[in-house]
Amino acid sequence: MSISVFDHPVMGRLLGDDEAAGYFSVTAEIAAMLAFESALAAATADQGFISDEAASAISELSATFTPDIDALGEAVARDGVMVPELVRQMRARLGEPHAFSLHFGATSQDVVDTALVLRLKPLLDLLGERLERVLERLAAIDQGDGDIQLAARTRMQIAIPIHLSDRLRNWSQPLERARDDLAVIRSRVLRLQFGGAAGTLDRFDGKGDDVAERLAFLLDLALADGNWHTQRDGLVMLAEWLSRVTGALGKIGQDIVLMAQNGVDDVTLGDAGGSSAMAHKHNPVKGEILVALSRFNAVQLAAMHLALVHEQERSGSAWTLEWLVLPQMIVATAAALRNAQALMENLRFAP
Amino acid sequence: MSISVFDHPVMGRLLGDDEAAGYFSVTAEIAAMLAFESALAAATADQGFISDEAASAISELSATFTPDIDALGEAVARDGVMVPELVRQMRARLGEPHAFSLHFGATSQDVVDTALVLRLKPLLDLLGERLERVLERLAAIDQGDGDIQLAARTRMQIAIPIHLSDRLRNWSQPLERARDDLAVIRSRVLRLQFGGAAGTLDRFDGKGDDVAERLAFLLDLALADGNWHTQRDGLVMLAEWLSRVTGALGKIGQDIVLMAQNGVDDVTLGDAGGSSAMAHKHNPVKGEILVALSRFNAVQLAAMHLALVHEQERSGSAWTLEWLVLPQMIVATAAALRNAQALMENLRFAP
Amino acid sequence: MSISVFDHPVMGRLLGDDEAAGYFSVTAEIAAMLAFESALAAATADQGFISDEAASAISELSATFTPDIDALGEAVARDGVMVPELVRQMRARLGEPHAFSLHFGATSQDVVDTALVLRLKPLLDLLGERLERVLERLAAIDQGDGDIQLAARTRMQIAIPIHLSDRLRNWSQPLERARDDLAVIRSRVLRLQFGGAAGTLDRFDGKGDDVAERLAFLLDLALADGNWHTQRDGLVMLAEWLSRVTGALGKIGQDIVLMAQNGVDDVTLGDAGGSSAMAHKHNPVKGEILVALSRFNAVQLAAMHLALVHEQERSGSAWTLEWLVLPQMIVATAAALRNAQALMENLRFAP
Amino acid sequence: MSISVFDHPVMGRLLGDDEAAGYFSVTAEIAAMLAFESALAAATADQGFISDEAASAISELSATFTPDIDALGEAVARDGVMVPELVRQMRARLGEPHAFSLHFGATSQDVVDTALVLRLKPLLDLLGERLERVLERLAAIDQGDGDIQLAARTRMQIAIPIHLSDRLRNWSQPLERARDDLAVIRSRVLRLQFGGAAGTLDRFDGKGDDVAERLAFLLDLALADGNWHTQRDGLVMLAEWLSRVTGALGKIGQDIVLMAQNGVDDVTLGDAGGSSAMAHKHNPVKGEILVALSRFNAVQLAAMHLALVHEQERSGSAWTLEWLVLPQMIVATAAALRNAQALMENLRFAP
Repeated sequence: MSISVFDHPVMGRLLGDDEAAGYFSVTAEIAAMLAFESALAAATADQGFISDEAASAISELSATFTPDIDALGEAVARDGVMVPELVRQMRARLGEPHAFSLHFGATSQDVVDTALVLRLKPLLDLLGERLERVLERLAAIDQGDGDIQLAARTRMQIAIPIHLSDRLRNWSQPLERARDDLAVIRSRVLRLQFGGAAGTLDRFDGKGDDVAERLAFLLDLALADGNWHTQRDGLVMLAEWLSRVTGALGKIGQDIVLMAQNGVDDVTLGDAGGSSAMAHKHNPVKGEILVALSRFNAVQLAAMHLALVHEQERSGSAWTLEWLVLPQMIVATAAALRNAQALMENLRFAP
Repeated sequence: MSISVFDHPVMGRLLGDDEAAGYFSVTAEIAAMLAFESALAAATADQGFISDEAASAISELSATFTPDIDALGEAVARDGVMVPELVRQMRARLGEPHAFSLHFGATSQDVVDTALVLRLKPLLDLLGERLERVLERLAAIDQGDGDIQLAARTRMQIAIPIHLSDRLRNWSQPLERARDDLAVIRSRVLRLQFGGAAGTLDRFDGKGDDVAERLAFLLDLALADGNWHTQRDGLVMLAEWLSRVTGALGKIGQDIVLMAQNGVDDVTLGDAGGSSAMAHKHNPVKGEILVALSRFNAVQLAAMHLALVHEQERSGSAWTLEWLVLPQMIVATAAALRNAQALMENLRFAP
Repeated sequence: MSISVFDHPVMGRLLGDDEAAGYFSVTAEIAAMLAFESALAAATADQGFISDEAASAISELSATFTPDIDALGEAVARDGVMVPELVRQMRARLGEPHAFSLHFGATSQDVVDTALVLRLKPLLDLLGERLERVLERLAAIDQGDGDIQLAARTRMQIAIPIHLSDRLRNWSQPLERARDDLAVIRSRVLRLQFGGAAGTLDRFDGKGDDVAERLAFLLDLALADGNWHTQRDGLVMLAEWLSRVTGALGKIGQDIVLMAQNGVDDVTLGDAGGSSAMAHKHNPVKGEILVALSRFNAVQLAAMHLALVHEQERSGSAWTLEWLVLPQMIVATAAALRNAQALMENLRFAP
Repeated sequence: MSISVFDHPVMGRLLGDDEAAGYFSVTAEIAAMLAFESALAAATADQGFISDEAASAISELSATFTPDIDALGEAVARDGVMVPELVRQMRARLGEPHAFSLHFGATSQDVVDTALVLRLKPLLDLLGERLERVLERLAAIDQGDGDIQLAARTRMQIAIPIHLSDRLRNWSQPLERARDDLAVIRSRVLRLQFGGAAGTLDRFDGKGDDVAERLAFLLDLALADGNWHTQRDGLVMLAEWLSRVTGALGKIGQDIVLMAQNGVDDVTLGDAGGSSAMAHKHNPVKGEILVALSRFNAVQLAAMHLALVHEQERSGSAWTLEWLVLPQMIVATAAALRNAQALMENLRFAP
């Protein structure tokens, strides 16, 4: 299907991103869920809640299990989340006596949120690397062409002469700050979610923190102080960061589109797009895309902030709203960074 | 891929909609584009701009052509739109002397916008039918249970006794108005887009209106007064309508979730969702989904309105922004209507 | 205070609108509330629920009453709505035996919503007149300068030659549709709100509809089928219309800003803004303002759509959210229309 | 005027905030602008660009100057910004030979942005103190009532027993993080804006950095690396922080509203609001307000992110958009914190 342009086999080549998208395939998602269940089994065995044999059986199953996707789909239309049916399928395969050692003490949200976080880790690396490459490209442009004189334009009118360097500084500084802020985002987001039915790890007789600590260690995630099942500010800060990045790229894109206008001619684009009606056109497609993706993310961010009002111990409404927007914001950002990099490789500034 | 939950093979079963999604597959999209090119050939032949032989050749090719999707993807990353490469592939297949009779006088936007409209026609029928079924279900509930007494709740506190009918009326009236408004939406949206390079049908020596009239007739679309390449208020009104529908369903969903609370117990849900941690739970998943989808659409609508600022004769930024949100809004609405219908089939109101 | 730029004594001269703002003063608001109470007294007397003497006393008081604003403020911080304290103050002044004939059978929402609608009536007239004047101005430009040749620009690049008329048509058609749609908006919005405690007119022993009919007649408003206390789609459609108008004006503003760029020089602005640093600058301020106001309204519209999820028989959250955005959207639109008109009076297009 | 509820003399008592609003009065705004001009005069005199006599004259005038507000309003309708006219009025009063020593080397944006930052400093203190008081109140509730048992509710249904402490932890932790993040926000926001006509301090012959350093010192602000005239990520991060705070408070408000429902009765509100129709009602007004303000801020945040696309060396559109939303977001947050504090002082939890 291709309801979202990001999932579209044609349009996704421009607006989506294969590398980032890989982490949002069902395969990747379920692999992350199985990694959680496997590590949970090890951690609960470690504290004596399930047997070592059970943990081994679960670990083996997790390494190879392929769920019945159709049955997951049918169940999700009823349960709102795919974990109950995934656990049921796995338990059926495990059989007695280990079936109920699987998913011991956990709840769906532990699986879903942690499986997301496990994929956010490489995704943040990916975004960080691309950001770095964009910054390198900006630095290279500055070194090569920074001294070129340019008419500054304020309120869309010619102001006074500046150098290209002056404009470039305003392009790169927000991206440099975004790069530096990534460490904070990582510390807020890459945390284990583990709370059980209502966030209190009620099945663990006071040893919940020990299980959590071991589980976090096994998954190479930080441990939250308690859990964050209804505290979505970490994910929200990630979404803010994404939109700040696309906003900074949107400014660059808009500037380049304006600079490339016939009559302004401050820059020529090497790989401009063609038109089906006019052979002479050189359309600044990548610049326009950066503007579109920045507006897209700006608007989605409102949805993420709305989802901060997460009722009581778990809100189906708020949680679902996150799923509807966060993956798209991430892929939009990956696509914007890729397009920005490509755009900058082909700019020729007018001396 | 499944970056969007709507495209997700599992989650899409709850949040997406197979029937609506079909119209957003690449296959359906290209089929609509080919229908445009075929009808355009007939209309331009009709006015003598291309030969009847060329029109026949184009019509035959359009009936069977399967493009090289990968090449479309590569081209779109440069052109921002898939039409130039699609036309190139078709022209290569047509060969001389008919190649340049294809797409005569048209531009990419004519193809993309009209191909969207051609699919919006059955989609609006689909949404209209589902809306009707939801209204029928509400009427049936009213007939069966309307006399049940209920404690009205204002500002979330018990007010005075009312009947279920009173609440149902507030559920159904906005949906009835939405049903009635569909005719207006159809008249604003189901219109041919045809303007050529810059909206002036410059290739037709004053006979552009005749070609347009014939083309609209062949595609069974209304004729706009001129063209609407930069006038996006029709699509925006569709988006508004979609969000009004999901808003009305969101209110119903929220009310049912509140009524189903333990301690309130105004309603019992027949097909509530299960929990992976608590067997006794009956989660009002479909009600929550209606709330989530309503918030999703409310936020996306801002993006559609932003896209009204469509610069000059064609804005790549604004146009792309539409693509990023409109298909999702439509599928969200189809999914909300389907979930609402299912939800209402399983309500048992407490006498 | 001037937390909102619309209320700012300086910035409001550009971004706000004195004429529209007048309808949102406390004085105007309370006058509308008193008009409701006075008409309600007449209508309930008409049906025998209160005495004619009471109705006369209430009518006289309403004509002259000036509330203690400070006490209203103190009460609103507790009640969330100013009506309970307003009614209390009026009852204290009325004294026995008429005190409890005031506000008979009504609830705060009846007063607040109807008092809004009473002011929306002249506001819609105001907006409609300004829209007409903008359209007249566009027609005059077309008549005078429509034949001027212009380079069409698609995707921000020169395409083919068109005439100014071609661009003007895309500016005016969406506004013409908005003008025509105003009749629908009026029919959806200018309706009496009257439901009593929970929307069932419970105090009127089956004669509620008669009271409502009389009340609507006296206030020169249409009668809703029942009431719309939780059905906010009428107000939401108004908000949509407002944002479509500012969106259409935003496109005009953006185009003019682009046309006025040095190097493009398609238009010269007669009353461009000055700079504190550069005497030579001619800033296209009014064009920029149109873009800013269109984005503002596009975003606010999301809040109005969120407020469609109006829980049960009255939602304090959703209702308050409307108050936070709707008046600003109206004034933004009035300001955009005024600025558009002024902008268009001073354009000199390059032949 | 009271177009915005925040500026409304009655509704503002609930939804607005007198203390925060004070910083957005025209008086406070102009005082901050005069402080900038005075410090600029001292800093430019320090580097020999104007005479010490001129600096003294400007300093004296700034201490007492009251502008002609009406003339500012007239000018702003043309210039889009009040600084050119303010400078004109001040120069007229200064007379020769000092007139042109005023505002030397600066541009309107330097004045407007820095005058905002000067007021954000005490505003952030105010918000920080209120946040601290809310956290203290939460800690006190935990100490007093934390052991009370509560039915956890997940997806709006009873799950398992927890303690009030468990829910309180999810209320307070996001607010604790917000408190801790305030230091970062201060470091990003409280920075001098000083760039001259196009951000290059072109009038200072290479000594611009020295002037800037002195100016920042005099105004007790940090020095940006260069200037941030088109880099709005600092203000955007402030807006994000505001919406995270109101989101966290919105969750608390929503939870309390749900807990206070008849039939759930987990909490009783001491100062609930009254109804004009039903004397028995205890409306959880402050809880509802917290939800409404959180949604308001969530939506406004989209506008702030849109304003990141700030074209070239100064964007009138993007800059104006900030003005339309940022002050309201700040006051909404101040009001939410005040209402949250009041709400929490009157909660009685059911044992």
